[in-house]
Amino acid sequence: MSSFGTLFRVTTYGESHCKSVGCIVDGVPPGMKLTEDDIQPQLTRRRPGQSKLSTPRNEKDRVEIQSGTENGYTLGSPIGMIVRNEDHRPHDYSETDLYPRPSHADWTYIQKYGRKSASGGGRSSARETIGRVAAGAVAEKILRLANGVEIVAFVSSIGPVSMNRDPQSPEFQQLLKTITREQVDDAGPIRCPDSSVSDQMTKVIEQYRDAKDSIGGVVTCVVRNCPIGLGEPCFDKLEAQLAHAMLSLPATKGFEFGSGFAGTAIPGSQHNDPFVFDEASQRLKTKTNNSGGVQGGISNGEDIYFSVAFKSAATISQEQPTASYDGADGVLAARGRHDPSVTPRAVPIVETMTALVLADLLMVQKARESMSALVRED
Amino acid sequence: MSSFGTLFRVTTYGESHCKSVGCIVDGVPPGMKLTEDDIQPQLTRRRPGQSKLSTPRNEKDRVEIQSGTENGYTLGSPIGMIVRNEDHRPHDYSETDLYPRPSHADWTYIQKYGRKSASGGGRSSARETIGRVAAGAVAEKILRLANGVEIVAFVSSIGPVSMNRDPQSPEFQQLLKTITREQVDDAGPIRCPDSSVSDQMTKVIEQYRDAKDSIGGVVTCVVRNCPIGLGEPCFDKLEAQLAHAMLSLPATKGFEFGSGFAGTAIPGSQHNDPFVFDEASQRLKTKTNNSGGVQGGISNGEDIYFSVAFKSAATISQEQPTASYDGADGVLAARGRHDPSVTPRAVPIVETMTALVLADLLMVQKARESMSALVRED
Amino acid sequence: MSSFGTLFRVTTYGESHCKSVGCIVDGVPPGMKLTEDDIQPQLTRRRPGQSKLSTPRNEKDRVEIQSGTENGYTLGSPIGMIVRNEDHRPHDYSETDLYPRPSHADWTYIQKYGRKSASGGGRSSARETIGRVAAGAVAEKILRLANGVEIVAFVSSIGPVSMNRDPQSPEFQQLLKTITREQVDDAGPIRCPDSSVSDQMTKVIEQYRDAKDSIGGVVTCVVRNCPIGLGEPCFDKLEAQLAHAMLSLPATKGFEFGSGFAGTAIPGSQHNDPFVFDEASQRLKTKTNNSGGVQGGISNGEDIYFSVAFKSAATISQEQPTASYDGADGVLAARGRHDPSVTPRAVPIVETMTALVLADLLMVQKARESMSALVRED
Amino acid sequence: MSSFGTLFRVTTYGESHCKSVGCIVDGVPPGMKLTEDDIQPQLTRRRPGQSKLSTPRNEKDRVEIQSGTENGYTLGSPIGMIVRNEDHRPHDYSETDLYPRPSHADWTYIQKYGRKSASGGGRSSARETIGRVAAGAVAEKILRLANGVEIVAFVSSIGPVSMNRDPQSPEFQQLLKTITREQVDDAGPIRCPDSSVSDQMTKVIEQYRDAKDSIGGVVTCVVRNCPIGLGEPCFDKLEAQLAHAMLSLPATKGFEFGSGFAGTAIPGSQHNDPFVFDEASQRLKTKTNNSGGVQGGISNGEDIYFSVAFKSAATISQEQPTASYDGADGVLAARGRHDPSVTPRAVPIVETMTALVLADLLMVQKARESMSALVRED
Repeated sequence: MSSFGTLFRVTTYGESHCKSVGCIVDGVPPGMKLTEDDIQPQLTRRRPGQSKLSTPRNEKDRVEIQSGTENGYTLGSPIGMIVRNEDHRPHDYSETDLYPRPSHADWTYIQKYGRKSASGGGRSSARETIGRVAAGAVAEKILRLANGVEIVAFVSSIGPVSMNRDPQSPEFQQLLKTITREQVDDAGPIRCPDSSVSDQMTKVIEQYRDAKDSIGGVVTCVVRNCPIGLGEPCFDKLEAQLAHAMLSLPATKGFEFGSGFAGTAIPGSQHNDPFVFDEASQRLKTKTNNSGGVQGGISNGEDIYFSVAFKSAATISQEQPTASYDGADGVLAARGRHDPSVTPRAVPIVETMTALVLADLLMVQKARESMSALVRED
Repeated sequence: MSSFGTLFRVTTYGESHCKSVGCIVDGVPPGMKLTEDDIQPQLTRRRPGQSKLSTPRNEKDRVEIQSGTENGYTLGSPIGMIVRNEDHRPHDYSETDLYPRPSHADWTYIQKYGRKSASGGGRSSARETIGRVAAGAVAEKILRLANGVEIVAFVSSIGPVSMNRDPQSPEFQQLLKTITREQVDDAGPIRCPDSSVSDQMTKVIEQYRDAKDSIGGVVTCVVRNCPIGLGEPCFDKLEAQLAHAMLSLPATKGFEFGSGFAGTAIPGSQHNDPFVFDEASQRLKTKTNNSGGVQGGISNGEDIYFSVAFKSAATISQEQPTASYDGADGVLAARGRHDPSVTPRAVPIVETMTALVLADLLMVQKARESMSALVRED
Repeated sequence: MSSFGTLFRVTTYGESHCKSVGCIVDGVPPGMKLTEDDIQPQLTRRRPGQSKLSTPRNEKDRVEIQSGTENGYTLGSPIGMIVRNEDHRPHDYSETDLYPRPSHADWTYIQKYGRKSASGGGRSSARETIGRVAAGAVAEKILRLANGVEIVAFVSSIGPVSMNRDPQSPEFQQLLKTITREQVDDAGPIRCPDSSVSDQMTKVIEQYRDAKDSIGGVVTCVVRNCPIGLGEPCFDKLEAQLAHAMLSLPATKGFEFGSGFAGTAIPGSQHNDPFVFDEASQRLKTKTNNSGGVQGGISNGEDIYFSVAFKSAATISQEQPTASYDGADGVLAARGRHDPSVTPRAVPIVETMTALVLADLLMVQKARESMSALVRED
Repeated sequence: MSSFGTLFRVTTYGESHCKSVGCIVDGVPPGMKLTEDDIQPQLTRRRPGQSKLSTPRNEKDRVEIQSGTENGYTLGSPIGMIVRNEDHRPHDYSETDLYPRPSHADWTYIQKYGRKSASGGGRSSARETIGRVAAGAVAEKILRLANGVEIVAFVSSIGPVSMNRDPQSPEFQQLLKTITREQVDDAGPIRCPDSSVSDQMTKVIEQYRDAKDSIGGVVTCVVRNCPIGLGEPCFDKLEAQLAHAMLSLPATKGFEFGSGFAGTAIPGSQHNDPFVFDEASQRLKTKTNNSGGVQGGISNGEDIYFSVAFKSAATISQEQPTASYDGADGVLAARGRHDPSVTPRAVPIVETMTALVLADLLMVQKARESMSALVRED
């Protein structure tokens, strides 16, 4: 369905070529300052056309708040937001009337719904993520004000070129502790903060662009200052909701947090994160962080970090042998220019989806804590 | 929370050391034959103590249906099921009164709830999965009867030893097409169907057992005969719900489907799955299956396959330096014998959680198809 | 929250004086013809300013579909709809900066949210119902196409003047079988189809209008051709969901269905609806219909009928002694002209809310029926 | 479905003649004292066989907590509870194999599910309410500890005999302020606290009992000390959720709160509840309480009061002409003795369902208040 969250809930609408895309955000706490200026930056960061490495489509993607605020403060009522669709050029897609595009959603949408949008990706288009990003920007502000939460994502691999993201590497853990969005954006259009590999990544993308091909990558994300205690055992563990959120993004193929797949080969004696008493915070912390900030589905106050795999974009300019809807063999060539790597654009989307998960879990935990304080008899 | 699903919904209860664990399964279609015999096999497969490689705890784990069936047929009303807790031995855990066990949920539960179960893992215990397995066994029967769906999971890696699971390997794709539960169980306690590596896996587990240590692994799962059209864009894509389900299992660190993380390095021209007309089914199929049976969040009728990373078990018998609850440095040694690898036991849990996801999505899609047939005017 | 429904779900946004009000409708079956022309009539019927008995506010209330349709057919994706707020005149309400209006939501909103909209009713305004009516008009079309469902509401009492709605009266039951929306609207602005009492109702309303006062009323609604089997025991019985829907409307004070409160004094021997075999439909029907078309929470194919109590409007032009926000005694006089009876305007709102309930229950039941057909072994 | 609530959520299972009935209660705050002794009293109050006016079925209805507590304190994990079915006597119902009982759920269940329980009411049986009452007793304790909430229900009418429940009557309002459960139970098996009418009520019930008939009634309920601010505009207003809860109970036909249906004839100038400053609480209160403690869907701190109509029981001992399942005219006579009035037994059920609604709304509001305090910038 098109809703996500329990107490902090976003519902989105919109296809690639309809009048507008947007969302309703329910559960926003009242009394918070909020204007379009809080939301637009992440929408702008997700826009295509930001560099020569991206698609030349130039969408304005200006968000307009419809409801839920007055004089710049939230009312506690749902926030309706719309972003108009301006640059649709439906004719670029005409050949797809004959062919379901390989590894696109054309064929499955027709199987599921009996029809699909006449042009473009319809609801499966990346434009659908605009509503999520707008809602997630609100969630980010809530988390920042409430707990100083910092969420920073970056590109950690492009094709075969990968920066070090070994969970046991001190350098990687240090980077997680300090990386900022400014650093990520300043690192250039690839959004990889490791300059030792970002040049190679650029070359890889240029190579596939020149070959009218595409290449995938990995986005890694860190959450700092997440309150302790978020995550709802057993079905709605923090990592389960993050995985749900991330795998709901277009073009994703995998999710791992903390030590991830590599962690399966680290024996328990090394993988376990021993507790140490931290003088500064006067509480227990863990010496290592193979757990990725989550134990038993609940945040433990350490940095939460995870990675998301994005496949190579399905839309490529080179000719592809495939079958038409009616079963005839043929060749499909997408017209126009296409983004050889969508991974860098996913950075703000991963961040805002993360915020949607955490804001909801924070509200649920606040309800529990408040109630427990009222009924506790021991 | 403790519920999962929209129309086919399971709600579980129970800790490691309470009277019983169990579940309520809502949405089971009426008129289906169902007795404990349909459910017990998967519960038995998840039991510990099945071989010398596993923990000697000997639980009976007999499921008792409380409601929702009559004369061996489902009524359409919720099915209550309970499994008594018999072998709890609370004293084995007494040292954990002083120490939060590293990478266990002891500390986070106390932070979240202000208290935790006095002994054992409480709600974070693997016994919590019993309710899911019982419910999932019902889902499996529904899927089998409705569409001949086959769900088979197996261990694909233990620590550094991994069988071939390259998405572009014909041998791996062939194995996915044919592997059965019988073959998996016949392969021995490791549940790895590739005999060329299972001996090494056994050696790895024995090595860590002898070292009073533990080691993780990967479970791979395939779904065959999944109906086309399951999965709800945009937030509830099939892969998003599978990821949610899998990362809600204890000890999981990652999820990938289809080409997964490896797929990020496969260029679009190779990664895209071209359509071909299939004479046998008289419909389009895809020539390759890097998509893992899902495109745009919707099943396309190809095999769905995915892998789940399980970390090394946190409970180890060797001494671990760590801090006590009150901040003092010390050493924790878990008493008793512990399972060096929980990965093989996860096999039926992965299968049944998969069934819970698919049964729910199938019901939702059936509602849509029925309604669309009623209102369609073209 | 701002969402209603499980599979057919509406989410609304908007206050009385923000940019627009609207909704997202999720779960609309694909392939149905749908344009603004299907939705506008009910929005127009709920508009104020339709006669001298109503408020002179003249809102255009034109709905604009943003997404979810293409070339006049639904895609199966969520339908975003907006209606711009045009005539807000915030200055009419300035005195309410000092006084919480008696029996309005001003004070409770401030208590709940810590703030309220600076002018007008904000989210508690009747304008909030626009999103529901737009969504409900879609639901009405679905139900009409799927099963020929007819939903007709009308005013059955205004203040002390009531038409006969005795559940055991043959005349009343006959009226339920035949009444149409055209007849209701043709009956004049009161929307009471019983001409023997509608003149008195008009006089009552005029009397209270002249006294700068207001008066309440009752809306009765009948659903014909509702499919058998809708309603989800035990918490989501058909009548429970209708009651929920109706009591969620502004200014409602009560709900009864079938024999209602009067039925508590009808002994079981008369209240029970005996079964008779109906030759026309070749199935059992009930001879009487004290059950109001629902037995055990499930529709039985007879006419569903229920009544909703609407209190006298809280906004009146005469002076009211009351306390200001800071506790000082004073007198509040609402400026401007106000509708002496909102009950007739509630007619399309009751109808569309009914449709929202039934469309959702129909989808849920279709899922069950489809699944049961697939797994039934007897 | 079988779940109710968002953060405080109960899920029930069980039919009249299966092994046990029960529930899972999710969202119970940790650290609260809780044993069976907190729950049993309301279960005992709902038991039949409490007096010569009730049915002689003698069920023990002993609740057994399965999980979620330890050493008498809640853990924060879900609380599983079961109550065994002991006295089912399936043979009493054998004639209903031929006849769908008039105004029972037999026929609609078969239509909906394709089958029904072979004997008794199955899921539509009043035994299904046991799980709700057990869960609601937990909710009552939470509300009492958190805010001193008092919930008291009583029988206000039996058939044509009614106590004064005019919302504008000072006597009635005074009774609402003071009535206790002890007074209600001490008033005798009818549970009507007005001794001037309870004797007549007894006579009415005896009269219908002797005639092998049944008679309905009304239960009125008051909630005192409800926190201000509960209720979620717009779809989940406090009154909407109460209405949903009440109409989900078997045999209910109507719900009204505050002035109710009578309020539709009270002009706005009298119906509006003026604000006055209350010295004791140092806040605004309302002079009258036609609103029934709720304005704009949100509790305002005044007494919440409402009434629920219960129809005459469908099960009567006298012969009833009706049709058999296969359409033949016939006569059905229920064997055994049957309760001529179920209304008094509904008292604890109404109370506990009320508690389920309020506990959930309280948790949701606590989440909002906590979050708002964290993000408020004004």
